[in-house]
Amino acid sequence: MDLRIIKSPGEGTLAILKRRKGSGPREEIPTPDAVGLVQGKLIEMVCAADLAEKAVGVTVEDIRGSCPQNMIMLAIFGDTASVMSAMETIEKGSKAQEEW
Amino acid sequence: MDLRIIKSPGEGTLAILKRRKGSGPREEIPTPDAVGLVQGKLIEMVCAADLAEKAVGVTVEDIRGSCPQNMIMLAIFGDTASVMSAMETIEKGSKAQEEW
Amino acid sequence: MDLRIIKSPGEGTLAILKRRKGSGPREEIPTPDAVGLVQGKLIEMVCAADLAEKAVGVTVEDIRGSCPQNMIMLAIFGDTASVMSAMETIEKGSKAQEEW
Amino acid sequence: MDLRIIKSPGEGTLAILKRRKGSGPREEIPTPDAVGLVQGKLIEMVCAADLAEKAVGVTVEDIRGSCPQNMIMLAIFGDTASVMSAMETIEKGSKAQEEW
Amino acid sequence: MDLRIIKSPGEGTLAILKRRKGSGPREEIPTPDAVGLVQGKLIEMVCAADLAEKAVGVTVEDIRGSCPQNMIMLAIFGDTASVMSAMETIEKGSKAQEEW
Amino acid sequence: MDLRIIKSPGEGTLAILKRRKGSGPREEIPTPDAVGLVQGKLIEMVCAADLAEKAVGVTVEDIRGSCPQNMIMLAIFGDTASVMSAMETIEKGSKAQEEW
Repeated sequence: MDLRIIKSPGEGTLAILKRRKGSGPREEIPTPDAVGLVQGKLIEMVCAADLAEKAVGVTVEDIRGSCPQNMIMLAIFGDTASVMSAMETIEKGSKAQEEW
Repeated sequence: MDLRIIKSPGEGTLAILKRRKGSGPREEIPTPDAVGLVQGKLIEMVCAADLAEKAVGVTVEDIRGSCPQNMIMLAIFGDTASVMSAMETIEKGSKAQEEW
Repeated sequence: MDLRIIKSPGEGTLAILKRRKGSGPREEIPTPDAVGLVQGKLIEMVCAADLAEKAVGVTVEDIRGSCPQNMIMLAIFGDTASVMSAMETIEKGSKAQEEW
Repeated sequence: MDLRIIKSPGEGTLAILKRRKGSGPREEIPTPDAVGLVQGKLIEMVCAADLAEKAVGVTVEDIRGSCPQNMIMLAIFGDTASVMSAMETIEKGSKAQEEW
Repeated sequence: MDLRIIKSPGEGTLAILKRRKGSGPREEIPTPDAVGLVQGKLIEMVCAADLAEKAVGVTVEDIRGSCPQNMIMLAIFGDTASVMSAMETIEKGSKAQEEW
Repeated sequence: MDLRIIKSPGEGTLAILKRRKGSGPREEIPTPDAVGLVQGKLIEMVCAADLAEKAVGVTVEDIRGSCPQNMIMLAIFGDTASVMSAMETIEKGSKAQEEW
């Protein structure tokens, strides 16, 4: 599972993410301070999405490539501290679940 | 074959699963206590689906990624004990069938 | 090439298979005693389909995943003895053809 | 590159191939004595198709899976001797071109 | 992650890129002096796109293959010096993020 | 990156290529003396297309499989000497760029 954080994402970067979000064009996402990205197997992404959703101060979106296959990506929007905290939770949770 | 259990899944996580379930928007799934996830080859998933279907107290759905390829995912909804019991049956059955 | 047999397949399992059969919703398949599943490369599947078709007492269907790629799956419906006999023929035929 | 020959192909096997041929439902293929199958990379298939087309007494069709990726399959229809002769030409040509 | 630079790209090459750009046919891209190409995992591409967007004097487009899977490509248009500078930033940024 | 040359391509082979060319059915390609084929990653194909376009006496087309993924193929049409010359340029250019 790959994890990345983009601080102060540019407008074009947000446009790439918004064009591919799974929920369709529902309520607008206000320009975030940071974006956390998570890429892995579908089953890992669903678990990561659940951990991120339960974290405070972030919005979670699943991102599709044109044909993302087993590679769905998760984008986590929010202020920098909240995004970093959510990403750490995902990293820890992923390791815990592998030992299941 | 990968197996994961999510306890008290969040609303957003259930939305990701429901957007991709193979049966279409038929009868509503009531918010479950737990969700078991199974990811593997198509042939493994069909066998796992059959074992899960014969287990007690769970609902089985096949989940599509945008292009899940040989990677279809199975979601097993129910109370925590029933989901855990179904997941153990799948894990055992998978090993038994590999020896066939 | 992977081979599996499901005895007394559940209704939900048959629904997953029927939703994906390549021939479309033509004549109905009566609920079978057993289902044989075969997964492999497209070229192996076509050879297996031919062997299964020439076997007695079984119905053969090709199953698509959402994007099955080189992974098409074959489902062989029938009474338990006929399905097992057809599956053995496929297993032997596969080995013979590899030596060609 | 994988090569297989099916002698006296069954009706269902021909139906699987016809459902997927790239040329669409143009002139009917009369039921052949034999079918040669060739599976490999797109670039190998195009070279094989050219060799088969220049062979005598066979009809060549490119077969698509639902999402055959770099795996397109070639079906070569004809009497048994012509199909076997075309398949040998493809096997030899493939080795010659690898040395280019 | 693969990086390439094409100097004075031909008309046909630009046509291949324009046919596949993710933003659709919005404002025209004037024929550039150079094109930088970046290919990698979706998560790497989003990070590279953000770095390129913050660089001076270049336009960034995400390029889709027909089914690019986890392989989305980024095209960076501009004068030769700006494109080379942006590509160096991406190369460095990619290494820094791997250490995260 | 795979490279192949077909001399005096047959009518059926040209039909397979024409059915899949990315530019759609624009101006007709006169039957060529030779066809050069190039298969590799999307980023390699774009660089090869640029080199081929700048070569003399050849026409370049990008070829799609049904789902060519990171595998797009390039077809280079022309007289035998021009096609061979363009293919050599691509082979050399590919090696030079790998060292970048």
